[in-house]
Amino acid sequence: MAPNDKRDDSRPPLRVRRVSLDTGRENVVVISRHSSALRPEIFRGFSRVELRRGSKVVLATLLITDDDGLVGSDEIGLSEPAFRRFAEPIGSLVTVSPAAAPESLDAVRGKIQGRAFEPAEIDAIIRDLTHYRYSDMEVAAFLISSASFMTSRELLALVRAMSVAGTQLKWPSPLVVDKHCIGGIPGNRTSMIVVPIVAAHGLTIPKTSSRAITSPAGTADTMEVLARVDVSVDEMKEVVAACRGCLVWGGHVNLSPADDILISVERQLCIDTGEQMVASIMSKKLAAGSTRLLIDLPVGPTAKLANATEAMRLRKLFEFVGDQFGIAVEVITTDGRQPIGNGIGPVLEAADVMAVLANETDAPADLREKSLRLAAHLLEYDPQLRGGAGYARARELLDGGAALKKMQEIIDAQGPSTCRNDVGRLSFDVQAADDGAISEIDCLQLNRLARTAGAPIDKGAGIRLFRKIGDRVEKGQPLYRIHAYDQSELDLAVAAATRNSGYVVGARQGLAVETAP
Amino acid sequence: MAPNDKRDDSRPPLRVRRVSLDTGRENVVVISRHSSALRPEIFRGFSRVELRRGSKVVLATLLITDDDGLVGSDEIGLSEPAFRRFAEPIGSLVTVSPAAAPESLDAVRGKIQGRAFEPAEIDAIIRDLTHYRYSDMEVAAFLISSASFMTSRELLALVRAMSVAGTQLKWPSPLVVDKHCIGGIPGNRTSMIVVPIVAAHGLTIPKTSSRAITSPAGTADTMEVLARVDVSVDEMKEVVAACRGCLVWGGHVNLSPADDILISVERQLCIDTGEQMVASIMSKKLAAGSTRLLIDLPVGPTAKLANATEAMRLRKLFEFVGDQFGIAVEVITTDGRQPIGNGIGPVLEAADVMAVLANETDAPADLREKSLRLAAHLLEYDPQLRGGAGYARARELLDGGAALKKMQEIIDAQGPSTCRNDVGRLSFDVQAADDGAISEIDCLQLNRLARTAGAPIDKGAGIRLFRKIGDRVEKGQPLYRIHAYDQSELDLAVAAATRNSGYVVGARQGLAVETAP
Repeated sequence: MAPNDKRDDSRPPLRVRRVSLDTGRENVVVISRHSSALRPEIFRGFSRVELRRGSKVVLATLLITDDDGLVGSDEIGLSEPAFRRFAEPIGSLVTVSPAAAPESLDAVRGKIQGRAFEPAEIDAIIRDLTHYRYSDMEVAAFLISSASFMTSRELLALVRAMSVAGTQLKWPSPLVVDKHCIGGIPGNRTSMIVVPIVAAHGLTIPKTSSRAITSPAGTADTMEVLARVDVSVDEMKEVVAACRGCLVWGGHVNLSPADDILISVERQLCIDTGEQMVASIMSKKLAAGSTRLLIDLPVGPTAKLANATEAMRLRKLFEFVGDQFGIAVEVITTDGRQPIGNGIGPVLEAADVMAVLANETDAPADLREKSLRLAAHLLEYDPQLRGGAGYARARELLDGGAALKKMQEIIDAQGPSTCRNDVGRLSFDVQAADDGAISEIDCLQLNRLARTAGAPIDKGAGIRLFRKIGDRVEKGQPLYRIHAYDQSELDLAVAAATRNSGYVVGARQGLAVETAP
Repeated sequence: MAPNDKRDDSRPPLRVRRVSLDTGRENVVVISRHSSALRPEIFRGFSRVELRRGSKVVLATLLITDDDGLVGSDEIGLSEPAFRRFAEPIGSLVTVSPAAAPESLDAVRGKIQGRAFEPAEIDAIIRDLTHYRYSDMEVAAFLISSASFMTSRELLALVRAMSVAGTQLKWPSPLVVDKHCIGGIPGNRTSMIVVPIVAAHGLTIPKTSSRAITSPAGTADTMEVLARVDVSVDEMKEVVAACRGCLVWGGHVNLSPADDILISVERQLCIDTGEQMVASIMSKKLAAGSTRLLIDLPVGPTAKLANATEAMRLRKLFEFVGDQFGIAVEVITTDGRQPIGNGIGPVLEAADVMAVLANETDAPADLREKSLRLAAHLLEYDPQLRGGAGYARARELLDGGAALKKMQEIIDAQGPSTCRNDVGRLSFDVQAADDGAISEIDCLQLNRLARTAGAPIDKGAGIRLFRKIGDRVEKGQPLYRIHAYDQSELDLAVAAATRNSGYVVGARQGLAVETAP
C-alpha cells in the first residue's frame, strides 16, 4: 500500500493536543483541514492513520475539522482513549502517516472467503486486537467472519490466544474452583452465596465478575453495594490469600482483554454465537487460573437458551474446550423460566443475598436452593469430602452461619462500599389484571423495566417481585413493585409496565385466545 | 430493547449545535457528559442514538465530551454529515434517545448464521443504508455476511434494490451504450477516446465515471484536466442532448447511492467479491439507463484478475445479471500485464488521450488500439452498421478527426476546466539497473509511486513511461520519469522507486536467483 511509503521524516511532525471526546474503545484523532504537516486530501480513502514517536506507534481513526479552536494546523487532537494509550505529554511532537491495515486482517479476508484460520493467524489477530490496532469495523469483520463457522481447531486456538493476552493469575493451590453463569436471568446472584460457602469450606475460589452490560445488575454491580469491587490484581491476591475467596470486578484485573473488545462489538451488532461465548468465558477462566469450573446454563422461553437441544450443544463445547486445556468443566442446566430471588437491581439483589446468608425466614427459597446446589457441585471437587456429601456440607456452612461470617470477612478485606445503598423511595405497584395462577414471567421484559427504572446506575432502582410462577393472584393484587430514585424514570418504567407487565396470569395468552371462541 | 421505551417527551430536548468534524459518511453526534436531558451513563452499551424533530428522524453514533466549549449541557453537537442530513437550523430543539438498530439488521444476523436473504429483506437493507440508518460497522456486517456466499436470487435482488435507490436516468433512444472497466491498470483511459468515437457515430453514450479511490487517476480526475466534470443530472442531460455523449463525474448524479456507501466500507476493509463488484457496476448502469454494455476485464499478474478462470467466473456473473435485467452485456478480457498508454496521473493521461485523438505520431499505440477495439464492439450495436464493420468505422472516425471534433464539443458543452493542467516541473528519471529486455511491469507498484508523487490531488504529478514489456534497455537508461509539484513528495516517490522500481529487466527475479548458484 502507498501509505507505507509515506512513513518518513520529511513532513514536519504535529504537536499532541488532548481533545475531550470519549470515543469508547476506539482510538480517534482529529487534524485540521489546514494541517501544516498533512494534506488531509491525501487521506481520502484512508480513514486510519499511524501516530509515531520514537518506537511508540498507535493506530487511530481520523476525523478532520475546520475549527481552529479544536485543533490548530500544527496540532493533532487525540481523543480520550487515544491520548491515554499513546501516553505522551501534551505538546509532544509526533509524526503521522496514513496507516495500512494490520497484516493479520489478511487472514480475516481469507476467512470471509471460506478458509479456516491457522492458529498462528489467530494469535496475530488477538495480538493486534489487544494492542488496539483494529478499528471497530475491523473487529466486526473478524467476529462476523468467524460467526458463520468455526472449527474445533480454530476455537481452541482462539481460547488459547485470548487467555494469554492479558493478566494470567497463578494460585498456590492446584485446586482453584470457579463458577460461571451465562446470564440472562434477573436476580440469580448465586455467586455471592456460593463463594462464601465454598471459601468457608476452605477451597480457593477467586471470583471475578462483570458489570451489567444489557441487564439491570451484574454480580460486580450488586457486590459493590456491600463492598469495594474495583480492586487491582495485587489487592485481589491479598484478599484471596486472606479469605480463600473474593467477589471483585474483573475490569481492573485485565483478564483476557481481547474478550472485552470483542464483547463491545458483539453487543453493538447483537451477534452472539456459542463458539464466541465459549471462547469468551473459557479464555477468562484460563487466565484466572481456575482448574475446576462449574457452568450454569439457565434454560427457558425468555432465557438465552430456549431449550435442551441448544443447551446440550453449548455444554459439549464447554466440555471439549475444558478437556483440551485441562480444566475440569462441569455444565449444569437450570430452570431459567423466571427470575431467581425476589429483587432485581443491585440494592434489591444484595438484600436477597444477605437474607439468604443470614438465614432470614423470608429469604427467597429459590435463590437459597439454587446456591446450595451449585455450591454442592463445587464442594465435591474437594478430595477430602465423601462423594455425595457436597450438598449437606454446603447446607451446614450456610445454616451454621459460616458462610455469612466468610462473606463479612470478604467484605472487610475488599473494603467498604462507597455507593448509595438505599432502596429507591419512589415506587409503584404493578397489579394483576385478572384472577388466576401465574403461568409465565418474561425475564427480558423485567430486565428492561428494571433498567428503565434506573438500574444498574441507580443502585436502589429496580423491581421487587411478590409473585412467582404457580402463585395464585386475584385481580388488583400486586405482582411486583417498581423502585426508583428519579420520578421521570419511574414514570417511564410504569408506562412500559402498563403496556407489558411481563406476567401472564392464567393460561398462556395464545391459548386463551384459542379457547375463546 | 429498553431504548425504545425511552422515546418519550419527559426529558427536555437539546439544542442543535454544529460541530466542525468531518466524520466521512457516518452520522456522528456529541453530547456533554453533564447533559441536562440525557444521562450519558445510560448510553453505556448504546453507541447509537436517534435524533427526532417532528417527523424527522436521524440515527447517529454518539460521542461524549467533558469540554463545555465544544457542547454545552443543553446542546447536542452534530458533526458535518449529521448536520447536513438532519438539515435543521442551529438552535433547533431535538429530542434524543438511545436508538435500536434498524430492523433490517435482523436479516443480516440471519445471513451471518447461513440463511439466504429474501428479496424484501434486501430491499429493506438497501433502503436503510441509503437513508444513512446503518453505522459503518453495520454496513460492514452486511457486506461480510454476503461475502461468504450470495445466491443468484440474492444477487438479482441486490442489483434491483440498489438500482432504484437513487436517480434513474431515462433517455429518448432505446439504444444507450456504455462501457466499463473494472480498473486496476495504470493509464488505460480508453473511455475518453471511446466516448467521442461512439458519439461521433451517432450512438447515445452518457458516460459517468468515478474519481480515483486507490489509484492515481480515475476517468473523472483525468477528464477534469480538460473540462468541468462535476455536473448535475440536468446539465448532464443537456450535454447528452447536444453531443450524444458526455464524460462526467458520477458524484453529483446520485446513481445507486447505496453503492457509494458499500464501496466506502469495502475499501476500508479491502474486501471485494465478484458478486459485490457485479452488483455495484450493474446497479449503476441500470440506474444510468444503459441498454448495451461492454465490460473490460484486464487480466494480468498484478491486475485485479490474475487469470482466465477468474475472468470467466466474473464474465458469467455479468452476463447472467445483464440477461435478467434486459441489458445486452458483452464482456471482453484484455491484456492487463502492464499500463496502457505512457502517462500515469491526470495531466499525463489527458495528454495521452489528446495525442491519440489528434492522431499525433508519438501517441501511445496501445491506448489507440485498445480504444479502437472497444469502440468497435460498441459500434456493432448499431443495427445500421454491417456486421464486422465496427473496427473500420471506429478507425475512420478517429483517423478522420471526427472523434477529436466530438471531444471538443463535449468539452465545450461541459464547460472549461478550472484545475491546474501543467505537468509537474520537478522530476526524476528512474534508470534500468541492468541490461536486458523488460519482462514484467508491476501495475500496483506504479500506481503507488504515482500516488506518492501526488496524483490524483496534484493533477500534474505522476509517471511518464519510456519503456514497456519487451523493450530492450541498457543499464543506466531511463525506464520512466516521476513528476511532482512538491519536492518532498517527489523525494518520497524516488525513495520508494529506488527500493522497488516496479520493473523487471531480463528474466523474472525469482528465476534469476534460482540460477545464481
